[in-house]
Amino acid sequence: MTPGSDARADRLEHPVPDYSDPPYGGRYGKRLKAFHRTGSLLVLSGMTPEDRDGTVLHPGRLGENLTVEQGYAAARKATINTLGLIRLAVGSLGQVLAPVQALGFVVGTPGFDRHHEVGEGVSDVLAEVFGEAGAVTRANLGVAGLARGNCFELVLTVELRPGA
Amino acid sequence: MTPGSDARADRLEHPVPDYSDPPYGGRYGKRLKAFHRTGSLLVLSGMTPEDRDGTVLHPGRLGENLTVEQGYAAARKATINTLGLIRLAVGSLGQVLAPVQALGFVVGTPGFDRHHEVGEGVSDVLAEVFGEAGAVTRANLGVAGLARGNCFELVLTVELRPGA
Amino acid sequence: MTPGSDARADRLEHPVPDYSDPPYGGRYGKRLKAFHRTGSLLVLSGMTPEDRDGTVLHPGRLGENLTVEQGYAAARKATINTLGLIRLAVGSLGQVLAPVQALGFVVGTPGFDRHHEVGEGVSDVLAEVFGEAGAVTRANLGVAGLARGNCFELVLTVELRPGA
Repeated sequence: MTPGSDARADRLEHPVPDYSDPPYGGRYGKRLKAFHRTGSLLVLSGMTPEDRDGTVLHPGRLGENLTVEQGYAAARKATINTLGLIRLAVGSLGQVLAPVQALGFVVGTPGFDRHHEVGEGVSDVLAEVFGEAGAVTRANLGVAGLARGNCFELVLTVELRPGA
Repeated sequence: MTPGSDARADRLEHPVPDYSDPPYGGRYGKRLKAFHRTGSLLVLSGMTPEDRDGTVLHPGRLGENLTVEQGYAAARKATINTLGLIRLAVGSLGQVLAPVQALGFVVGTPGFDRHHEVGEGVSDVLAEVFGEAGAVTRANLGVAGLARGNCFELVLTVELRPGA
Repeated sequence: MTPGSDARADRLEHPVPDYSDPPYGGRYGKRLKAFHRTGSLLVLSGMTPEDRDGTVLHPGRLGENLTVEQGYAAARKATINTLGLIRLAVGSLGQVLAPVQALGFVVGTPGFDRHHEVGEGVSDVLAEVFGEAGAVTRANLGVAGLARGNCFELVLTVELRPGA
């Protein structure tokens, strides 16, 4: 266990959502699975910076109506939401050994070239929660658009502790 | 085994392609691998809504020349094609324990924001074939374009049954 | 061991970078992890066609200022860079059993449709280094942009030999 990862997550700027109630997935599809666990790998569904009521943080496009700071804030919120998926899967963030891979999709104009600065929002939240072990392999890709006008989507995979 | 998953797949609106003959991959590259299996994980190559003869279902862009219904139909066809990759790998869809992850890439205009409705085509086919076990973690990303004018590409990973 | 994979890699058109010195990740973020290993799976961080000094090979967009040949060359360089991540992780390319999955993100105009020809750069380098075992499952996605003006990014996962 990483002592305190749950406590640290609960001090972030947004609450870690509880995806058990209401159940995960309503707005995006009828049969979405929040996570798939196989052995120690936990694959998490794509997550956007939305509140549980569907309010989208910073809709739009980087390089157009959004600043890098807003994109960074959206990446942080998508990551905090993803922490909620981990809790739904295994109860506690303390069960995470380390994040494996973060694919971060950033809605940007063709001229936008600071996707990595947006993606730092993911790395920073993971570091604030998991400490040194929170480092993650990462790719940030500039997409044309995302569902419901979101400017960021995170697809995260983590490895769980033995016995988790 | 999920009794009947092969039979259910063979009743879908397109035939599940046989990628053994002609061999998978010709138009897209010389050395493509249809799948990689490691333990119970089966990683499948990216699949578009093309017939084996190269006819592309609904080429173009969502939000421009294609409706959400056409995108949904393309997502279904890419999924049905991917079922053919699974059969090529392990012989029968009955060997699938559950899908793990569906990354669905949707070609859309910057203003298009209904990627998740397109991606329901993936979830619906998986549910029709695998039933309750067919739920999958999913992300739908809006890309600028895809090879050969396709409007959708699916990258699917599944978990196989023990002993498969 | 595949005899000679390291030697073959060192005869490619670009040197395989040494990501131990200077350490991997500086320009893209403070806490990036070059790789994550779990069992025999080695997940590698996203890699662009940049030199260690930050010089970007062929910045821009396919279908606009770049030819398919330039995109192909960029894909090759990103792959050669990724070989450096594998060496950082396990010391020798001879530890690779087979590549698992190559996600190749190509910056292209909405009208560009030859992403697969760009992606052949990945497959060709893997074949030149690993021989028949170098075939990989692949998807090539056309994105709106990438960090620092890069035209290509590769996210590669490989499987290591038993005992690696």
